[in-house]
Amino acid sequence: MTHRTFSFDAQPDGLDPAITAPFPGSRRVYVQGSRPDVRVPMREITQADTVGDTGREANPPLTVYDTSGPYTDPDTPVDLRKGLPAIREAWILERDDTVLLDGPSSGFGQERLADPATAALRFEHIRPPRRARAGANVTQMHYARRGIITPEMEYIAIRENQQRQAITDERLLQRHAGEGFGAQIPDEITPEFVRQEVACGRAIIPSNINHPELEPMAIGRNFLVKINCNLGNSAVTSSIEEEVEKMVRGIRWGGDTVMDLSTGKHIHETREWILRNSPVPIGTVPIYQALEKVDGKAEELTWELFRDTLIEQAEQGVDYFTIHAGVRLPYVPMTANRLTGIVSRGGSIMAKWCLAHHRESFLYTHFEDICEIMKAYDVAFSLGDGLRPGCIADANDEAQFAELETLGELTRVAWQHDVQVMIEGPGHVPMQKIKENMDKELSICNEAPFYTLGPLTTDIAPGYDHITSAIGAAQIGWYGTAMLCYVTPKEHLGLPNKEDVREGIVAYRIAAHAADLAKGHPAAQVRDNALSKARFEFRWEDQFNLGLDPERAREYHDETLPKEGHKVA
Amino acid sequence: MTHRTFSFDAQPDGLDPAITAPFPGSRRVYVQGSRPDVRVPMREITQADTVGDTGREANPPLTVYDTSGPYTDPDTPVDLRKGLPAIREAWILERDDTVLLDGPSSGFGQERLADPATAALRFEHIRPPRRARAGANVTQMHYARRGIITPEMEYIAIRENQQRQAITDERLLQRHAGEGFGAQIPDEITPEFVRQEVACGRAIIPSNINHPELEPMAIGRNFLVKINCNLGNSAVTSSIEEEVEKMVRGIRWGGDTVMDLSTGKHIHETREWILRNSPVPIGTVPIYQALEKVDGKAEELTWELFRDTLIEQAEQGVDYFTIHAGVRLPYVPMTANRLTGIVSRGGSIMAKWCLAHHRESFLYTHFEDICEIMKAYDVAFSLGDGLRPGCIADANDEAQFAELETLGELTRVAWQHDVQVMIEGPGHVPMQKIKENMDKELSICNEAPFYTLGPLTTDIAPGYDHITSAIGAAQIGWYGTAMLCYVTPKEHLGLPNKEDVREGIVAYRIAAHAADLAKGHPAAQVRDNALSKARFEFRWEDQFNLGLDPERAREYHDETLPKEGHKVA
Repeated sequence: MTHRTFSFDAQPDGLDPAITAPFPGSRRVYVQGSRPDVRVPMREITQADTVGDTGREANPPLTVYDTSGPYTDPDTPVDLRKGLPAIREAWILERDDTVLLDGPSSGFGQERLADPATAALRFEHIRPPRRARAGANVTQMHYARRGIITPEMEYIAIRENQQRQAITDERLLQRHAGEGFGAQIPDEITPEFVRQEVACGRAIIPSNINHPELEPMAIGRNFLVKINCNLGNSAVTSSIEEEVEKMVRGIRWGGDTVMDLSTGKHIHETREWILRNSPVPIGTVPIYQALEKVDGKAEELTWELFRDTLIEQAEQGVDYFTIHAGVRLPYVPMTANRLTGIVSRGGSIMAKWCLAHHRESFLYTHFEDICEIMKAYDVAFSLGDGLRPGCIADANDEAQFAELETLGELTRVAWQHDVQVMIEGPGHVPMQKIKENMDKELSICNEAPFYTLGPLTTDIAPGYDHITSAIGAAQIGWYGTAMLCYVTPKEHLGLPNKEDVREGIVAYRIAAHAADLAKGHPAAQVRDNALSKARFEFRWEDQFNLGLDPERAREYHDETLPKEGHKVA
Repeated sequence: MTHRTFSFDAQPDGLDPAITAPFPGSRRVYVQGSRPDVRVPMREITQADTVGDTGREANPPLTVYDTSGPYTDPDTPVDLRKGLPAIREAWILERDDTVLLDGPSSGFGQERLADPATAALRFEHIRPPRRARAGANVTQMHYARRGIITPEMEYIAIRENQQRQAITDERLLQRHAGEGFGAQIPDEITPEFVRQEVACGRAIIPSNINHPELEPMAIGRNFLVKINCNLGNSAVTSSIEEEVEKMVRGIRWGGDTVMDLSTGKHIHETREWILRNSPVPIGTVPIYQALEKVDGKAEELTWELFRDTLIEQAEQGVDYFTIHAGVRLPYVPMTANRLTGIVSRGGSIMAKWCLAHHRESFLYTHFEDICEIMKAYDVAFSLGDGLRPGCIADANDEAQFAELETLGELTRVAWQHDVQVMIEGPGHVPMQKIKENMDKELSICNEAPFYTLGPLTTDIAPGYDHITSAIGAAQIGWYGTAMLCYVTPKEHLGLPNKEDVREGIVAYRIAAHAADLAKGHPAAQVRDNALSKARFEFRWEDQFNLGLDPERAREYHDETLPKEGHKVA
């Protein structure tokens, strides 16, 4: 084959400047932790002075959570061909509980590395993978349970506080009492608090030791509500460059984690490029790749093949795996009378396998073997809801809750191995049935973080499912869901383009923030207050810049009132 | 001045065919009531057969609520210059409690009719106005309380049932139990039920006797949740044609009522054109026009001028008036420490008047005089929330709830006159504070219908406030709000264009439907079920057509999978 030329070759960062330019009025700043290499990034938004009858009054800059990585920092040029700096490497080395391997230990990983046909696509600077020393357990949960506060935990504590302690203006600090439904968010997040939450399983820090580029973050109901956005090529529609660019775009708009749902021939290589350039945790659904390896024939899947896929991906650095181990053989018939059957792709694959072999799912029977892999790299479980409802009618049914019981059982098994767990949730649920999902999840899964797709609160608006689902996401986030998986306007209809991704992410940032406000998160309302003050004082530029999408706000404003005079009036 | 040529002259319906074409797969049908002239419009959506392994199965058409008026009925051509047929005229005449006037009784109405400068703009076929006979009361509430079931009530009963009784397929009829928080929605809406709800004030039928073109509808918590969309020219941005077209567009997408918030020189004439062509209730904020008459100087407003404006508009046929009679002098200082003060335009005008004169608001002191006007034409009150919070920080404060207490007091006064009332609500409210708004409204205002703007659940997303507010609207609709006032993506930023209006309306149709589902409205879930069944069976065209925006769904689908083969696969 001919040598593949990446657009990255021509341009070091290879990215559309529109997605690397800092947001207007914003700059990336770093807050120093207890050691020089704990440098926590945030976004600082500058504000203009208030001009009143009696003079000027300064408005201090506002610091907000920043998921965008070094891409928006002009002082930290990124070379996509080399990947991001390995900021966690020293922390991992210091723990002295891992070994550097000679090369990939998965058969597939070895094969791909040796395959000349993929050489041209390959990320050049692949590090040899790292694995726990024999008998060691390298999960953040394991450290937490031994009383160790890792640099990751400290980093997260600083990050979650968002420099709120620097604000003194009472008008900005005022906030309503929240209703947390049992959430207990302290006024200040300390590293010790992070440790406790991880130790008891109420929060996770997805952070594979083979993803040292990661800027650590936590997913748990006593932290800011997070959002996930998906990307994924398909053979026909996109290239490696496009997938990397999608990831960068997704974190610019506010994706806290990214799931790579790619299919097709080069998913291994695409994943490597994404991981090496991603400052956020990357999740995958390994069964998708396993299925590719058996040419789409679910019944030909085997534990051995799946196991090799887990190791392949774990050694690349994937931070969490969706594993549909709750789709058990006896539950499959419970979906027979559903209006829309099984809609989860992973759920369908495993149901098909179970029925074809009339055997219990190998994900369930080999669950402890999977735990052994997870703890050797610190990959977190995202226990998939393969039997989630695909429509309003099927919400909260027997199949869904039977699976949830199994997810609770598996959570306790994983925790015996100190493996981190979150639980995936629906789907399509009418509003009056949402809280039952949350309450059951908390009780059945012992407060393991809940990670839901929406839920969509009605089925009748194809083309607007970012909205049908943002309504449900805001509510379930308020009730205690820790991470919301975004939905774009193209849900059920096609593949999202750039604008759809932006719409989906912003809709979900809104849902997450509305949930933080409702729970009474101490760092939430200050941004609403700052923006409202700017609005009241006709500081238009500040109003735009303090918002979730400054560019759109400005564009909409200028459409009808284009004069600069109107903006500073 | 030169003779003004309307685009209507060239083309009888003068409208973009894109907004009058029936939705794909849909046709307007009429359900006959107890008398020939009760013909209730609905939209019937045709479905393709299900093709299974064992043969074909027919899917019966689904009938849905239709707000679009005759515009989408190719059998009923509309001539905008002549206006819509006066379908209620016979009903009004039969009641024999009104008199036809020689001409407008308001000074301003007379002046405009005689002014040659406005002749060219004037709607040609102005009917002489009608008013209650001396001593008569022509409100639907008055009839209801006397035990009379009007044709309007029967029409509404048929309309609300949406032909649900024709469905026999259990898969489509299945539905979850709702949580109505006190709503009591019967399985079948009868005319007598409508009468009872109107009699006790829990629902209103906005239906001015001078708006005989109206297709009657009800606003109340035991009916389908309704939405309002706003239109309004401003001197610089739009013409009469554009406003009429906006109204038609708004009802096409699903606006149940339209508020005309026009300002500028020709609001009287614009309003006439809109009313004569509107099948949905039209609401206004008369203080806006009154302010125009005193050149924007709030302190120069007088009761006499305001009274003349009410009569002017009532005789044109406006169905409900927003009146900010709850902004009392002693409440104004309560807003002093707010982050964003008074954001309601009507509220600001009245606060300014009160402070300038240091007197109680003339809207409050003359409230019984206003009731006398309302009952002579059957204009409903929409008691304005002039002190609603303009940001999250100001939600549920002393000023807001003080005003609500007064709105409750005024509700009871209006009811003594058998005048219909709904109550306007906020605004900006974080999720955990929404229910308090609903609960207080129900208790303070004796269950008069609540009509809320959103609420927006966060302030940080200018450009996406249709979403921040759809989240709140769905919740407050669930809790009992009867009508949701839409918010477009341009809120706080500029004037909405066509696409913004579409986005705003669809977002609110979603919120209203999500609320209907959650309340357990018996006619709600069938549409979700039908669409989900179509989705599961890959009946793509049906999935599009059963949705709220078939055109967008199809367009999104075709972007990535353009082949017809994919749609019928």
